[in-house]
Amino acid sequence: MSHKIAILGASGYTGAELVRLIATHPGLEIAALAANSKAGQDMAQVFPHLRHLDLPVLVTIDEIDFADIDLCFCALPHKTSQEVISALPRDLKIVDLSADFRLRDPAAYERWYGNPHAAPELQKEAVYGLTEFYRDEIRAARLVAGTGCNAATGQYLLRPLISAGVIDLDEIILDLKCGVSGAGRSLKENLLHAELSEGYHAYALGSTHRHLGEFDQEFTALAGREVKVQFTPHLIPANRGILATGYVHGDAAKVHAALAAAYAGEPFIEVLPLGEAPSTRHVRGSNFCHIGVVADRREGRTILVGALDNLTKGSSGQALQNANLMLDIQETEGLMMAPVFP
Amino acid sequence: MSHKIAILGASGYTGAELVRLIATHPGLEIAALAANSKAGQDMAQVFPHLRHLDLPVLVTIDEIDFADIDLCFCALPHKTSQEVISALPRDLKIVDLSADFRLRDPAAYERWYGNPHAAPELQKEAVYGLTEFYRDEIRAARLVAGTGCNAATGQYLLRPLISAGVIDLDEIILDLKCGVSGAGRSLKENLLHAELSEGYHAYALGSTHRHLGEFDQEFTALAGREVKVQFTPHLIPANRGILATGYVHGDAAKVHAALAAAYAGEPFIEVLPLGEAPSTRHVRGSNFCHIGVVADRREGRTILVGALDNLTKGSSGQALQNANLMLDIQETEGLMMAPVFP
Amino acid sequence: MSHKIAILGASGYTGAELVRLIATHPGLEIAALAANSKAGQDMAQVFPHLRHLDLPVLVTIDEIDFADIDLCFCALPHKTSQEVISALPRDLKIVDLSADFRLRDPAAYERWYGNPHAAPELQKEAVYGLTEFYRDEIRAARLVAGTGCNAATGQYLLRPLISAGVIDLDEIILDLKCGVSGAGRSLKENLLHAELSEGYHAYALGSTHRHLGEFDQEFTALAGREVKVQFTPHLIPANRGILATGYVHGDAAKVHAALAAAYAGEPFIEVLPLGEAPSTRHVRGSNFCHIGVVADRREGRTILVGALDNLTKGSSGQALQNANLMLDIQETEGLMMAPVFP
Amino acid sequence: MSHKIAILGASGYTGAELVRLIATHPGLEIAALAANSKAGQDMAQVFPHLRHLDLPVLVTIDEIDFADIDLCFCALPHKTSQEVISALPRDLKIVDLSADFRLRDPAAYERWYGNPHAAPELQKEAVYGLTEFYRDEIRAARLVAGTGCNAATGQYLLRPLISAGVIDLDEIILDLKCGVSGAGRSLKENLLHAELSEGYHAYALGSTHRHLGEFDQEFTALAGREVKVQFTPHLIPANRGILATGYVHGDAAKVHAALAAAYAGEPFIEVLPLGEAPSTRHVRGSNFCHIGVVADRREGRTILVGALDNLTKGSSGQALQNANLMLDIQETEGLMMAPVFP
Repeated sequence: MSHKIAILGASGYTGAELVRLIATHPGLEIAALAANSKAGQDMAQVFPHLRHLDLPVLVTIDEIDFADIDLCFCALPHKTSQEVISALPRDLKIVDLSADFRLRDPAAYERWYGNPHAAPELQKEAVYGLTEFYRDEIRAARLVAGTGCNAATGQYLLRPLISAGVIDLDEIILDLKCGVSGAGRSLKENLLHAELSEGYHAYALGSTHRHLGEFDQEFTALAGREVKVQFTPHLIPANRGILATGYVHGDAAKVHAALAAAYAGEPFIEVLPLGEAPSTRHVRGSNFCHIGVVADRREGRTILVGALDNLTKGSSGQALQNANLMLDIQETEGLMMAPVFP
Repeated sequence: MSHKIAILGASGYTGAELVRLIATHPGLEIAALAANSKAGQDMAQVFPHLRHLDLPVLVTIDEIDFADIDLCFCALPHKTSQEVISALPRDLKIVDLSADFRLRDPAAYERWYGNPHAAPELQKEAVYGLTEFYRDEIRAARLVAGTGCNAATGQYLLRPLISAGVIDLDEIILDLKCGVSGAGRSLKENLLHAELSEGYHAYALGSTHRHLGEFDQEFTALAGREVKVQFTPHLIPANRGILATGYVHGDAAKVHAALAAAYAGEPFIEVLPLGEAPSTRHVRGSNFCHIGVVADRREGRTILVGALDNLTKGSSGQALQNANLMLDIQETEGLMMAPVFP
Repeated sequence: MSHKIAILGASGYTGAELVRLIATHPGLEIAALAANSKAGQDMAQVFPHLRHLDLPVLVTIDEIDFADIDLCFCALPHKTSQEVISALPRDLKIVDLSADFRLRDPAAYERWYGNPHAAPELQKEAVYGLTEFYRDEIRAARLVAGTGCNAATGQYLLRPLISAGVIDLDEIILDLKCGVSGAGRSLKENLLHAELSEGYHAYALGSTHRHLGEFDQEFTALAGREVKVQFTPHLIPANRGILATGYVHGDAAKVHAALAAAYAGEPFIEVLPLGEAPSTRHVRGSNFCHIGVVADRREGRTILVGALDNLTKGSSGQALQNANLMLDIQETEGLMMAPVFP
Repeated sequence: MSHKIAILGASGYTGAELVRLIATHPGLEIAALAANSKAGQDMAQVFPHLRHLDLPVLVTIDEIDFADIDLCFCALPHKTSQEVISALPRDLKIVDLSADFRLRDPAAYERWYGNPHAAPELQKEAVYGLTEFYRDEIRAARLVAGTGCNAATGQYLLRPLISAGVIDLDEIILDLKCGVSGAGRSLKENLLHAELSEGYHAYALGSTHRHLGEFDQEFTALAGREVKVQFTPHLIPANRGILATGYVHGDAAKVHAALAAAYAGEPFIEVLPLGEAPSTRHVRGSNFCHIGVVADRREGRTILVGALDNLTKGSSGQALQNANLMLDIQETEGLMMAPVFP
């Protein structure tokens, strides 16, 4: 049996990535694609790489009859998402890829995003979409909030260590190297090829990046006390990939053991042998996350490295994994493609 | 029922690409992986992006018991391939990805490759692997010779035009722009990142590239008279992709019609509307080939543009497509994944 | 003695390139930098790579007192340039980098650019800025029109051949591979890093690119009969560089001799030995143009390859070379820096 | 008056970069270029971007008459350098770009490089080449040891802070992002374009990189107590550039003030306003180093970011700056070219 799905925001990169993944998913059928600014166009005009697929023409959100839809992916910009979802049927299953429902606390939301939340009651209802740690809640959820791609990467490195109590909670540094597609398809001078290629830089310095709201919420809840990590992202001239380098105080063997134990049964998280470290190029285009642990020369200091594809495991792949759970489909369906290398 | 396959030359890019494609193919099982220089290693050491797969350890070719193998992919270097295949069982189905069996004429082989052929009787037996034009022969073949990636791209543009008689056979220019992975994983100074990125150049100038042997053989046979195209490849700083720009004398509408007719039922060849042209970025990681036709301002001159991924449709994807036919599996099995963009 | 210069349009790439070149030029002093949309800002905000220079604050064009200026570079968008230059003092020396004064014929201008020219009398006055072929006129000129970067590359390959009568004028194909910076700093979706990197495509197909207006004008005048080349540009994922591959009917040795003779005394044009071809990576950041000639396997067919940096020799370097002539400074002053490789 | 210089190891990237810089240096004349493996070749064959220069043919080191040479640059591989320099005249001025004379302590050298030093007496004589901090010693030196490119970047960030006593010496983390050319022109699989582009990874994890020997030597001497930083380099798909992100415990304003004071008169070190951070793309091809300081959200934590071009300020530019001092030439001669952007 095939479930009918809709994708709102189909003209952005996460929307296109959803279509790519669902294209070979045997249990899902794309019944509607919405992109208000490009309504009326064929998907082949907007994303020629999807030309071979038989897809519905792009429509406005208003044109969709949601009675026919089993699950809706919202790949809309932040803030727009909460407005749109507020107006959708209250029994429609939704996976939201925006930042709008990641933070449970309206005050925290307002602090990080600068505006009051337009749908605080939905904010309460939403389940945080980090599959490996919220699997049961997601299975039962109606509205799942996809995590930030940076937030996912950092949490894959740190959650098991916080739970196992093997690191100093006051000394956590995350230095991230992020691919370009994470910034989306928006027209900004600093995203032009001529501006971006052949160089790299740090941004959102001083731990001001919004994904810190997620770290604070999740790590503090997990630890039962305030945890404030330092987090500096860097923009790298490559399209896909997040590489998170974590600096922690803790014993490398214990750290490695905690990670290996936490992810032992996980289909998408690969913990490398102690002493090895991953590369973004080895997860590109896939739903896998590779994690490495290395002891520093200074005793009691350990370096963590995590790699995933921001558009797949960090966003649309995660969304599909969650949708599979919500629709009672095999969790890995449509997601086992190997990375594309070189 | 699952067919057991072996891959010889599994430590190169086309070998890895075969594993990537077969990883989610429901009808094939990887029973043996050979790479003489890396025998004893895990595939995860050689290609960490395949780490999640449960693959056999790399062995030498001698260690494989071919009695258990239903079909063997040879992704070995040119010249090595003919020696290895000569020694394999004569009833083993083989898809060869090297250049060794592409040319049917021993003299032509020696002229283009500089050495006499070591297995001329196999050369006679081999079927040229351009699926769309040799489908029946491939279905019945024991030994299929995968085409050159440049040769495939050029033929997709020109074969239907030669057959339809809509272009001047004496005025054909192919200007190719080729990604880096086509040169393989060999250690050459000009393939280093620092040498190659941020610049581009022509190579094998003067129509001296070996893939011309294939053009000459195929186009001459098709036309029933000698056809000698001009062909200049250029190395572009991107890993995957071939873009072939063809300059022909002929009417654009007729050219377009001939291509559209030839590929009407083909699952992997997409002919764009007249006046549009493709991009390599929209076929990356996939088995699709996009073709465009545009009329020049000069009457009677037409420009053709073809795009495919050299490692997939140009090599390993083609090989799998052919193997599907040889094993009586659905031709598109394992090959319908959408391109990865961005 | 130092000449005072102004740069109008200092916030674009050709403006920044002018500043880079003039920064170490002993005979020029940057007296004014204009960029209407960024007036009031420091150049270091707009182009941090120029941070170490002591430059005037950006102003609007209106704020400049041109009485103090010896020569003005106009690096403004097409169409804006003709309006601005119309309003400048009629005795001010000007090097214009836009397309506005390249075509001498108002009808040709309107045909290629779609609007009537706003300053036809200036159009008549302007000298075409291809230094090596208009040196004397440029020395005496008040207003010099910088050439298109593609137009310059193609002309360097073809002008000596047309003059020497060694090629068939009816069979000229130019296949260009162009770096990204040629498209400028404008916000277009297809110029985003995520859209552009890792792939390549043809554009302006069918010989519709505006630089054809220059080819038509110059080649026809040179040949004394109509010459209509075919010209297809391709966008390559690298920031700087134009590689022009030319397909001509003519004898390679004669072609090579004609080029070698034409450029024998030129400081910036390097003709490689017959049979060798250049790369864009070996001219990057410099004012040099490398030219190669190779005989095709088909008798009487010759392949030309030319490489230059679109921002330097193709635009701002050419502009400075012309300004040197106009100000009676050594022609090569400020332009002899070696290419940056790797 | 022109000084005659020789470059040993002219076929590597730092050798080519020296030639590029010296090409427009009015006080130096390249009298000899040595590259044992390519002796007899023209530099234009080895580095076509230097084709326009009138350079001596490559010779073996033995062929050079050092009596004519005023200063010799050694751009040889580590270990080879100490052997070659041992055999050179003892009154010849030498700037060595290898790692061989950076560490003053033979035991430290052996620990980091794995072999006993072949010329311990020269090791004692050598002056560490970090110009801004050893200017007087370099002016008087006969043998100057160029610093590691990573080591230079880290020291530019940290030396003024250690001297000023404004950071906790036990909590220093350096996370470096390094361009590809730093690995040289050697044939290694992991330096191929297909392996490297489109991805990034950490290497030399656990603070095992050899440049740590320099950090330990210099910081410990400066602090008067042992200082052991943590240092993790990452390989980024870009040819030039080092971006060093430093995590320190200390007050951002004091940190910024210490850096601003230290570099107030320096021609090549630009300290950005507090709160701003640099990019490698804005120093590319130049001898400039940009430094930024930002306060973290956690009180008392500060983030440092430094950017330089590894081949210029990190290696050959530094070498020329030192040579200028040793030859009593203006320190900035030949080094004031602006960065190349885009």
